Amino acid sequence: MLDQTSPGTLLSELRKQPPLVHCITNFVAMNIAANVLLATGASPAMVHAQEEAGEFAAIAGALTVNIGTLSSGWLGGMEAAAVAARQSGRPWVLDPVAHYATSFRRTAVGRLLELGPAVIRGNASEIIALAGGASRGQGVDSRDGVEQAEESARLLARAHGATVAVTGVVDFVTDGERAARIEGGSALMPQVTALGCSLTCLVGAFTAVRPDAPFAAAVAALATFAVAGEMAAGKANGPGSFSPAFLDALAALDASLLDRDAKVFAA
Amino acid sequence: MLDQTSPGTLLSELRKQPPLVHCITNFVAMNIAANVLLATGASPAMVHAQEEAGEFAAIAGALTVNIGTLSSGWLGGMEAAAVAARQSGRPWVLDPVAHYATSFRRTAVGRLLELGPAVIRGNASEIIALAGGASRGQGVDSRDGVEQAEESARLLARAHGATVAVTGVVDFVTDGERAARIEGGSALMPQVTALGCSLTCLVGAFTAVRPDAPFAAAVAALATFAVAGEMAAGKANGPGSFSPAFLDALAALDASLLDRDAKVFAA
Amino acid sequence: MLDQTSPGTLLSELRKQPPLVHCITNFVAMNIAANVLLATGASPAMVHAQEEAGEFAAIAGALTVNIGTLSSGWLGGMEAAAVAARQSGRPWVLDPVAHYATSFRRTAVGRLLELGPAVIRGNASEIIALAGGASRGQGVDSRDGVEQAEESARLLARAHGATVAVTGVVDFVTDGERAARIEGGSALMPQVTALGCSLTCLVGAFTAVRPDAPFAAAVAALATFAVAGEMAAGKANGPGSFSPAFLDALAALDASLLDRDAKVFAA
Repeated sequence: MLDQTSPGTLLSELRKQPPLVHCITNFVAMNIAANVLLATGASPAMVHAQEEAGEFAAIAGALTVNIGTLSSGWLGGMEAAAVAARQSGRPWVLDPVAHYATSFRRTAVGRLLELGPAVIRGNASEIIALAGGASRGQGVDSRDGVEQAEESARLLARAHGATVAVTGVVDFVTDGERAARIEGGSALMPQVTALGCSLTCLVGAFTAVRPDAPFAAAVAALATFAVAGEMAAGKANGPGSFSPAFLDALAALDASLLDRDAKVFAA
Repeated sequence: MLDQTSPGTLLSELRKQPPLVHCITNFVAMNIAANVLLATGASPAMVHAQEEAGEFAAIAGALTVNIGTLSSGWLGGMEAAAVAARQSGRPWVLDPVAHYATSFRRTAVGRLLELGPAVIRGNASEIIALAGGASRGQGVDSRDGVEQAEESARLLARAHGATVAVTGVVDFVTDGERAARIEGGSALMPQVTALGCSLTCLVGAFTAVRPDAPFAAAVAALATFAVAGEMAAGKANGPGSFSPAFLDALAALDASLLDRDAKVFAA
Repeated sequence: MLDQTSPGTLLSELRKQPPLVHCITNFVAMNIAANVLLATGASPAMVHAQEEAGEFAAIAGALTVNIGTLSSGWLGGMEAAAVAARQSGRPWVLDPVAHYATSFRRTAVGRLLELGPAVIRGNASEIIALAGGASRGQGVDSRDGVEQAEESARLLARAHGATVAVTGVVDFVTDGERAARIEGGSALMPQVTALGCSLTCLVGAFTAVRPDAPFAAAVAALATFAVAGEMAAGKANGPGSFSPAFLDALAALDASLLDRDAKVFAA
C-alpha cells in the first residue's frame, strides 16, 4: 500500500500539519485519548459544552463524538458540534458506545446519525445493532465477532453514506463499496480501557488530514493502532505496562515502519 | 481459607462469568477503576445519567456508587441506579468519599444509605463519621487508624444490615457479626490516587459473583488488592511505576496464587 | 537560591504539612494532576459542584481553577470557590486554558480574573491574549514562544496584582517587579497531556505552603517540574513511559536534590 493514501503517507502528513482534533468523548477515555493523539502527532482538544462546542467545531480540523458517558447536557453539545462541523465542511466521527443498552442511548444515536458522520467506528455488536440486527452485546463489550458484522457494516455505510469501521481481533472497514481488513494489534488491548474510544479520536485526526478520503483515513488510523499494538505487546508484561509501551510505540512509529508492518488486505 | 468462599475461588468464578459491573464513580477514578476491573477479569461500564442509570442498573450484575466528585445531577443518577439495583435484587456498594467535608455530601450520603447498600467501603475517618463518631478526616484523607474505626464499622454494619470494609494499612471487614482483617498491600498505594475508589468497584465485581455473600465478596476483593499490591511494590520505583505494575499483577494473579499469599485473619 | 524561599525549602515545608489543595480542573487532567500532587507530597481534593465548592474552598489551603473542559454549571462552582477562597484569605491559582478560543471562554475568564487570583499560569499564547495582545494559539496549544510573552506577563501581573507564570521550553515568572526564568524539563513533556494543568495544581500546593509569597511558590513549583522532568527524561523511551517515570521522580526528589539541580535565574 505504498501509495498516496497509504497509512504511512497519511501519518507523515498528519505530523506535518498537525491537525487540531475536537474530541467529545467519555470521562474514562479523556486522558488516554488525548495522549494517543499527542503521541501520534495530532493536537487534541476536549470541548463539550453546548455553550461553545459549535463555535469550536468550526475551527478544528475534525470532530469526534463518543457517547460512552452520555447525559442530556452533553448530547446537546454533541449535536451542536456535529451540526457546526458539517456546516463548516469538517468531517466528524461517531462512536456509538453501547447504544443498544438503554432507550436513552438508542434515541441519542438515532439523532446523531441524522447529522451525517463521515465515519462510524464501533465493535461488532454495536455495528450489528446500528444496522438493525440482533446483537449480543453486554454492557460496553461485544459478544459478536467482526466477521459477523461485515454485512451490517456494508448496509450501514450505504444507508448513511459513511465509512464504517468495525474493530476487533481483525478489523473491517468499508464505505459500502470498497472494504479492507486490518490485522495486528494484541490480545492485551481489550484489557485496557478506552483504547477503542481513543482509536475513534485517532480516526478523527486522520480524517482531518484527508477530509476527502474517509476510507483511507480510517484504514490509516486502524493500521497505526495495529502496528503500534504489536510493537507494545513485545515490551509489555500485562495490561498495565502495555499502556505506556503503546504510547511510546505510537511516538516511535514513522511512515516507512508503518507501511512496512501494516497488514491491510482488500476484502 | 481454601474453601468455597476463599478469595481464590471467587476470583476463578469472576473470570468464568465475567460480571458486568455498573460503576458510578468520580472523574479522578474513572480510568484507573475501569482498568482495575478489566485487569482482574470483570467488565466495567460507567453510566451515570439519571436518564438511563436505573435502566442500566437492572441489566448489570452489581452497582457501585462513589461520591468523590458529586453534583446534584449525578446524585439523581446514583439514587435512580440504587433503587433499580435493589428492585432487581442486585447488590450495590457505597463509597462515601469525604462525606463529612460539606453539608451537601452529608445530606447525599444520608439519602444513599437509606437505599440499602450491600457493602460500604471507606477509610477509617469516613467510617467513623458515618457511624456518628468524631472523625479527624481532612479533605479525602483519613487521619484516623483502621483499628480506631472497628467499633464504628460494627455499629454501621448492624444499623444498615450491610457489610462494612475499612481500608488502610491493615483492612477490617465486618457484617456486624463476623469480622476479618486483611494484611498486605504497599506503602506506595496511598500515593496513587483513586486506588481506594477502584477497590470499591472491585468489591462490586465480587458481589456480582456472590450476591448472597457480600462479606466473602468484600474479603476477596480486599485480598486481591493486598496481594497484587505486594507483587507490584516489588517491581515499582515509586508511585508512578507502581500503577502499571499493579495492573499487571492483577492480571497475573490466579486462584492458587491468591489463596497462597492472601493474609486474611478472623477478627 | 539556598535561602528561606528556595524551592527545596518550600518542598520540605510542603511535605511537613502537607497542604490540602482544592482543585477544580478539567476531565483530562483529573487523574494525572491528583497523582502529581500525591507524588510531590500534597493532598489533592477534586470538588467542583456549586452546591459545595465554596464551603470546601474555605477548609482547603489553596484553590486551583482550570477551565479546560468548561461548562456553565462548572463555572458557577469555580466562582463560588474563588469567592470563598478570597474571603477566607486563601490563595487561588487560575489556569485560563485556551480562553481565546471561544466567546464563552473569554467571558468566563474575564469574570474569574475579577475574583483576584494570586497566580495565573498559562502558556505563551494564553498569557499574551489575556494581556490583550494578539496570540497565535490554536486549540489548547501555544504557537508563541515564552520570550514573546514576557512583556504581556508583566502587564498582566501589574494589572491584577498577581504572579504570572508562563511555561514553555524556558519558563518565565513575574509579579510585575521581580522576574525569574526556570530552565529544565524535557521535550517529551508537551507530548503528555495535562502536564501543564497538573503544574497549575502544584503551584496551588506551593501557594498553600506560602500564601504570603506567591512568587516564590510559583518558582518552586516550576523548578520542581523542571528538575523532575529532566530526571524522568533520562529513564523514558517516549511519552508513555515518561509519565510513570515523572511521578517516580517527583516522589524521589528532596530538598537538597531540588536546590542542587534547579536552574532558576533572575530575569
